[in-house]
Amino acid sequence: MVDILHRVGVKTDSPEKVYEALTTIHGLAGWWTDDTKGSADVGGVIEFRFPPGGFDMKVIDQQPSERVSWKVVNGPDEWLGTTIDWQLRQDGEHTIVLFKHEGWKEPVEFMHHCSTKWATYLMSLKSLVETGTGAPSPRDVHIAFPD
Amino acid sequence: MVDILHRVGVKTDSPEKVYEALTTIHGLAGWWTDDTKGSADVGGVIEFRFPPGGFDMKVIDQQPSERVSWKVVNGPDEWLGTTIDWQLRQDGEHTIVLFKHEGWKEPVEFMHHCSTKWATYLMSLKSLVETGTGAPSPRDVHIAFPD
Repeated sequence: MVDILHRVGVKTDSPEKVYEALTTIHGLAGWWTDDTKGSADVGGVIEFRFPPGGFDMKVIDQQPSERVSWKVVNGPDEWLGTTIDWQLRQDGEHTIVLFKHEGWKEPVEFMHHCSTKWATYLMSLKSLVETGTGAPSPRDVHIAFPD
Repeated sequence: MVDILHRVGVKTDSPEKVYEALTTIHGLAGWWTDDTKGSADVGGVIEFRFPPGGFDMKVIDQQPSERVSWKVVNGPDEWLGTTIDWQLRQDGEHTIVLFKHEGWKEPVEFMHHCSTKWATYLMSLKSLVETGTGAPSPRDVHIAFPD
């Protein structure tokens, strides 16, 4: 089992805005993909769609301003059954976001791609909270072709 | 042991420019840090310096336009003894760069940080080759504070 790990620091007074961007359909659509639907409450399923396809995530856990956890219940084979874990904490003027995409069976080339792409989406989340504007799909940062 | 993995596609006719950016002091200074010195030949040691500190990398392997491998011989404890492996291959109009930073003992918070930061530096490498201008330190993309 191998994991994708990331960390960003978002300049904001408290973790509330980052938490909102991870736990509301409107917030998620502001940094990951315009085409976000479903239920973002615990036990609900969020449907994220991109031009090449998408993912359905079941919301496993939410601890206000501290933690969000999703399980992939639909999507590419490599993603099925993996989990996405977000941990937040405040450090002075920044909310520290620790990200884990856990449970990949093999370190396949697609995992390398997703690792880099997650980094750009975390920067989009940071930008959304800091400036009000993220770079969700289809206005996402391109790291290869097509991606 | 846990690894950082990334992948970018660089629009260029052949892997030669990416390979040059990984195997010459001038090329490395164009995307990672202005303050790059030493010997970039096999068996040599490259000294990368940033405002907070730096790394010395011994060049372990170079296969023209295909592979470059470094071992960390000086730097933060978490980096000592880890290896950086670059694999290149051409796919049509793009050079695919597969990156691995291998041999981390533990998935510490600093590893999360380095994973995200590597992604931004790979985007800097891509930009250098595609446009002639990268974003090396101290003009690097900031993902937290300070970083």
